[in-house]
Formats: sequence, structure tokens, C-alpha cells
Amino acid sequence: MKKLIAEFIGTLWLVLGGCGSAVIAAAYPELGIGFVGVALAFGLTVLTMAYAIGHISGCHLNPAVSIGLAIAGRFDKKDLFPYIIAQLLGAIAGAGILYAIATGKPGFELGGFAANGFGKHSPGEYNMFSAFFTELILTFMFLIIILGATHSKAPKGMAGLAIGLGLTLIHLISIPVTNTSVNPARSTSQALFAEGAWAIPQLWLFWVAPILGAILAGFVYSIISPENE
Amino acid sequence: MKKLIAEFIGTLWLVLGGCGSAVIAAAYPELGIGFVGVALAFGLTVLTMAYAIGHISGCHLNPAVSIGLAIAGRFDKKDLFPYIIAQLLGAIAGAGILYAIATGKPGFELGGFAANGFGKHSPGEYNMFSAFFTELILTFMFLIIILGATHSKAPKGMAGLAIGLGLTLIHLISIPVTNTSVNPARSTSQALFAEGAWAIPQLWLFWVAPILGAILAGFVYSIISPENE
Amino acid sequence: MKKLIAEFIGTLWLVLGGCGSAVIAAAYPELGIGFVGVALAFGLTVLTMAYAIGHISGCHLNPAVSIGLAIAGRFDKKDLFPYIIAQLLGAIAGAGILYAIATGKPGFELGGFAANGFGKHSPGEYNMFSAFFTELILTFMFLIIILGATHSKAPKGMAGLAIGLGLTLIHLISIPVTNTSVNPARSTSQALFAEGAWAIPQLWLFWVAPILGAILAGFVYSIISPENE
Amino acid sequence: MKKLIAEFIGTLWLVLGGCGSAVIAAAYPELGIGFVGVALAFGLTVLTMAYAIGHISGCHLNPAVSIGLAIAGRFDKKDLFPYIIAQLLGAIAGAGILYAIATGKPGFELGGFAANGFGKHSPGEYNMFSAFFTELILTFMFLIIILGATHSKAPKGMAGLAIGLGLTLIHLISIPVTNTSVNPARSTSQALFAEGAWAIPQLWLFWVAPILGAILAGFVYSIISPENE
Repeated sequence: MKKLIAEFIGTLWLVLGGCGSAVIAAAYPELGIGFVGVALAFGLTVLTMAYAIGHISGCHLNPAVSIGLAIAGRFDKKDLFPYIIAQLLGAIAGAGILYAIATGKPGFELGGFAANGFGKHSPGEYNMFSAFFTELILTFMFLIIILGATHSKAPKGMAGLAIGLGLTLIHLISIPVTNTSVNPARSTSQALFAEGAWAIPQLWLFWVAPILGAILAGFVYSIISPENE
Repeated sequence: MKKLIAEFIGTLWLVLGGCGSAVIAAAYPELGIGFVGVALAFGLTVLTMAYAIGHISGCHLNPAVSIGLAIAGRFDKKDLFPYIIAQLLGAIAGAGILYAIATGKPGFELGGFAANGFGKHSPGEYNMFSAFFTELILTFMFLIIILGATHSKAPKGMAGLAIGLGLTLIHLISIPVTNTSVNPARSTSQALFAEGAWAIPQLWLFWVAPILGAILAGFVYSIISPENE
Repeated sequence: MKKLIAEFIGTLWLVLGGCGSAVIAAAYPELGIGFVGVALAFGLTVLTMAYAIGHISGCHLNPAVSIGLAIAGRFDKKDLFPYIIAQLLGAIAGAGILYAIATGKPGFELGGFAANGFGKHSPGEYNMFSAFFTELILTFMFLIIILGATHSKAPKGMAGLAIGLGLTLIHLISIPVTNTSVNPARSTSQALFAEGAWAIPQLWLFWVAPILGAILAGFVYSIISPENE
Repeated sequence: MKKLIAEFIGTLWLVLGGCGSAVIAAAYPELGIGFVGVALAFGLTVLTMAYAIGHISGCHLNPAVSIGLAIAGRFDKKDLFPYIIAQLLGAIAGAGILYAIATGKPGFELGGFAANGFGKHSPGEYNMFSAFFTELILTFMFLIIILGATHSKAPKGMAGLAIGLGLTLIHLISIPVTNTSVNPARSTSQALFAEGAWAIPQLWLFWVAPILGAILAGFVYSIISPENE
């Protein structure tokens, strides 16, 4: 239960911090943080939680990560379902808190919130193929980073830094393509709030592509993984 | 006494560095650092001091942090009062130094200095509820990061990095809401200098909300905390 | 073979992440990441891979790095050829993936992709001498960082951070000069895709200058290197 | 002699990387790195060298740092003179390389290069008092960070990170005031190249204020320093 509370708080923080920076601060006139700031914010939610709760729950904060770790034999498959539920509830709680804060600004327009999308709902209007491929390959690489940096032969204590900044890197590349998900819980939390009834019909892609990428990484890493010490 | 001098210097640095970057460099024409730079500056004041004086005083630099640590049993309650006084004096000294430097620019207008505010004194005109909730939840998460990253089971030596970058993250989210406090000493130091007599009447929020968030985190972390090694 | 697959994946990531951020996100209207974001992205590809695959292949991701390490006696010369082939194939695969994603945006214009160039193909129109000298000296310093930070007397576990952020620094300085290479595999991968038939004729510089700089660093570092512990 | 070559290369890198990013990349149209990028670049020169040559020479790269460390009893006073000479020569070599590269751009105007100044030569036209006080207090804090983070009780291996990012922070605050020095070697190297004959007459401030700040820090830190382990 401690683990599930930790995953709940951590995923809440990922959504409040990452999506919150996008909704509240990215486009502030003149001084706004832009995509660089949003990329940094997403990464730092994971970096901070890795050091704060990594020793409690492993700090997955993401159903695709939990699944990829299970495929690679690093996470017990019977814990998958409760972890994913805790992550979803945490993400939705984070989105709710963000909604409560953001609507305290006079004239705030919800729009797409920080939902992920493709086609005309992609920030740069990238098509479905680009969106799918982007989410798949970036989640694949995210899991390679996670599996490699937490291997027993990797330098101790640095995994949280590498994984957090890896998520920053993923956002630096791909916000224009899909608003960047690589995390079905984060996507779901935003789709529930976004205006215009387009985000939920597009949500399937942000479950299928990240999970496929994570599964693929679980297999590929097992080929290149060194023996444990 | 060494501890109190260290807290004084560290909190001076937090205000001089964080508020200083905001007042001096954020809105410089064309090349200014914007909110990303200010967020980085605040975080780096804590990161640098964590490694420089963490082994002397614990590097709290913030009354809410000292209170949250005391609630969680990580800090002796009888040291609370002198720590908070040292933090307040350091913050005010930092603000004084910043004032002396900033007024050396021809045509400098003090305005709100880097004071925290809500309603029409929020950068984005967020209302009091949003401001209160933002300060409460972000200080809550700040303390979760601090309590988790300094736990005996967390990777050794990385707490300063996680905590400092956690403060950067907090600023990436919330500068538009309240100019970001999560630190009553920082807020007090700026309110004393700000023009227009609005900042002191709003100062209560930047004591009450962060301290409530910190107390709440002290209780919640004790639920999820693993046993000490 | 594990090592070669790791080098392939890592170099793919360097090109997809670094060049990808440049092509997809740098010039996005208003919120784009600019050269700061691209510099961060390149560095983070190396930082993340250093912790993910450093314990598998050493994480060179760059023919000039492999050659410099061989000169300094840190890498077996008989592995040079297969490493360089794996790096080239990985870089080209990364460029192919980026091409597939980027062309999913309506109206995308390929232009120079993220190719390196000099003279009128330098972003700031720097001449050939500046370009050559820049690539040589920056690769020289990159190898000094790599050789020093991986020395047995350097702090354990921090090399990946120093080397990755070193590549960020190199990009912060020199994107306007050559679009920054310091890596013949990265340059080759982009030249194959760039429009206008100018990038391949200029490719020689981005092999010769980085490799010369790396060889020079191998010799200079052996002068200042402390004894191994 | 190994130590002096290391200081030479390191200070060359500080000037080439820090001042180079300012001259070449800061004001590039639309995509330029601005003061945030320059601040990051200066800090990363020190961070990368700390891990690359810290175990050779201690990585001072700055006469004020060497003097502050000597005052605090951390550096042998008889090595002060050769270190300062090596730092000056390295800084001038870095400035020369930067000059050779920068002049390869058609229509390049040297102007003030990246020289430090006050009054009408301060980027924000800050007066001499502000400039002096800024350089003194920021060098004071830089030395507090250095002395604290390299203390035997501070976390092992993290000093290079804290000190490098401390220099980034110092630049985030003060580029508008003096273009930020805190380093007499860096200031001297630029003053020798700057156009208009104003930089050398102002150079005294960038020797006196940083060295005073460093000496003061050496004394203050000895008051708060814990016993060595």
C-alpha cells in the first residue's frame, strides 16, 4: 500500500508539474518558459520523484514503464494492475488540481488543456503515422535508458538523473509532434478535461504506441544486457 | 552558532540569487533570462548551498522547510525559533544587497521588487484561492522531495541535486500564479521593500499556505516512509 | 556483438534526439526551443546513453571519440573498425527515422536537414578556416573532458554527466559556426538526406577536423595524465 | 608542470566556452541562446573541467579562486604565482582562439568582445558602485560554494557539479550589471582584445573586487567550517 500511495503521489506530481508548466507558464507573454521549460519540468518531476520515492515504489509513474519493466523481468507481473490503477488515479488527481488552479485566472480558456493529439490536434499538425511512430520509438528509448541506468553495473545513484533528463530530452524532440506523451496515464488525465471531445477518441494511440515501444525495449534490452554482478 | 550563520548566508543567497535574477536579468531586452532563467536561479541557490553548507546546518533556508522537518521528526523542535530568525535576517540582508545593486541602474523602477502576490498582484492575476492552493500543494511536494531524498535509503549525495532542481520545477510551474514563494522568509524580505503598500497585507498567505503544506507533508511522508536502515 | 548493438542504438539516439530536436522543435513559432534546447538535447543523448550503455560498450557514439580513446591507449585499436561501422549505421538509421517522422508534417521542407556546413552553408556564414578550427579545437576539448572524466582518479559515476553536458557546452558555442558536428557519424547521416547536393562535398571537413582534434587530445592528455591508481 | 598545463587548458576553455558562447551564439537572430545560454556555458566550462582536470590541478581557472583557497589554507601560497600566470596565459590563448574563429564571419564587428565593464560599459549601465559590490559579493559566494562543496564532510564527487552550476547562477544574476567576471583572468583576456580603449582602464575593478570577495570568503568560511573528518 505504501508503494501504491507513492505511485499515486508521484504520478500526480508528473501531471501537475509537467502539464501544469505547459498550461500555466509556457505561453506567458514575453517571459514564458516555452517548450524548453516544459521539457525541463516534465523531466524534473521524474528526477525529483526518483530520489524521493524510488526507494519506496521504484518510481514508475507510467503504465508503459511498469509494463516494460515487467517484460524485462525487473517488476513482478502480479503488481502491474494495482500500479497502473494508482498511476491513473494520481494522474487524474494531478489534472484536477491543475484545473482548479488554472481556472482561477480571469479569462482562462481551457482549450485542449495539455492533451496529446495527432493530425489537426498535433501542435505541428503531424499525421497519425508520425505520431504513432514518435510515441513508439521514444518510449522504446525511454525504457532502454531506464533498464540500462538501473542495471547493477551502472553507476550507483545516477539513474534518477539519467531517467529524468531522458524524459526532458524526449520532450525537447517531440512536443510539436504529439505534445509528447510516452505515458498513457498522463494522456488519459488530460483527455478527460480537454474541451471539444477530440482527445478521448485519439487516446487509443497514447496507450498502444507507448506500450508497444516499452514491450519492444524489454526484449531488445535483454539481448544487450550484461550479466548482473 | 555556526549553523545559524550558515542559514543566514544560505538564505541571503537564495534571495539575492533567486529574486536578484528576477529583478536584474529576467526582462533584459532581447537576451533576458525569462522565467526559465529565474526558475533555474532559485533552484541553483539551494543546490549550491546544499553542497556548501548542508553538512553544517542542513541547509533549510526556509521556515516552512524547518517546520516540515520538525513535524517529520527530522529536526529538533527547540531549534526552530533560532533557525527561523536566522533565515528571516538572511533573507532581508539578501533583499537589502539586491536593492543596493539594482538602484545603481539609471532609471531603475522598484515596482513590486520580486514580491509574491495574488489577485491583481499575481503576475497572471490568479485569484486568492488559486494562489493559496498553489502555495500549499507546491510546498507539500517540496517537503515530500526533501523528506524522501534525504532518507537513509535514498542514493547518497544526490539530495542536494534533487531538492535544488525541485525548487526549479516549482518555479517553472507557478511564477505566473504567485511569483512563487513556498518560502515565508523569501516573501517577507521582498514585501518589506516593494512599493505600493500591497505586499505586506498579502504576506499572511505566504506564511500560512506554505507552512500548512509543509505540516501536511510531514504527516503524509511518515505514512509512506520506509524503515530507516 | 552486444557492444556493437549498443553503439548502434546509442548513435541512433544521438542523431534522432539531437538532430531531431533541431529539425522538429528549434524553430517552432513562439515556443520553440532555439539553440539552447538543441544544445541540451545533444548533450542529453550522450548523458542518457552514458548511464544506459556505458557499462556495455563504453558509449562512444562517435568515430572521433573511438579514435581519440585508441590513441590514448584506452580502447583496443582492433575494435576501431567495427565500432565506426556500427556508429555510422546507427546514425543513418536515426536520420532515417527522423526523416520518416518529420515528413509527416504538412508542408514540411527538408532543406539542409540538420547537416553541418561552412561558408554559405554555415548558419552564420563562417568561412572554412573558422569551421575547421572550431571543429578541431572543440573535438580536442571534448576528448580532454572524456579522457579526464573517465580517469581512475576522477570521481566515480560522474563521467556521463560531465561528458554529456560537455557536448551541450560545445553546441552552445558553435551551432552558428558549423551547426556543430565534432562527430563524423552525425555529419554523414545528415549529409545523406540534405537537399541541394552541397553537404556531401563539405563532408570531408567534418571527418578530418574532428579526428585531428581527437588525435591531438590523445597525445596532450597523455602528457598531463596522472598515474592510474 | 602538469598542474600548470592543466590550469592553462582549463582557463582557455573557460574563456573560449563562456565568452565564445556570448560572442558567437547569444544574439543569433530568433534562435540565439541569450543570457541563459551564456550562463549555462560558463558554468559548464567549470563543471566539465572540474571532472576532467580537478584531480590534476584542483581546477581553479581563476586567480581569485586560487587566492581565496590560499587564504583558507587549502592551497599552498608558494604555488599562487605560477598558477595565476598559467591562468592568465590560458585565458589570453582562449581569447585569441575565439578572435580567430569569430572574425571568420563576414561583417563581424568586434565591439567590446565579451569584456567586463561598468557605467556606460555595463550592459545595463549599472554604476561603478553596483559593479564593484556585485563582483565582490558574487565572488564571495562563489568561494563559499567552493570551500563548502570541497570540504571533507561534503558529499563526495558532487563538488564539480555544485561549483560549475554556481558559476551559472552567478551569471544568471549579473550579466546585466558587469557582463559578469568574478574572474580577473577572464576579464583581462577580453580587455586586451576589446575595441575602443575603455576596457583596460576599467580592468582594475575586475581584479580588486573579486579578490577582495575571495579573501573575505576565506576568512568567513573558516568561522563556519566544521572540523575535518
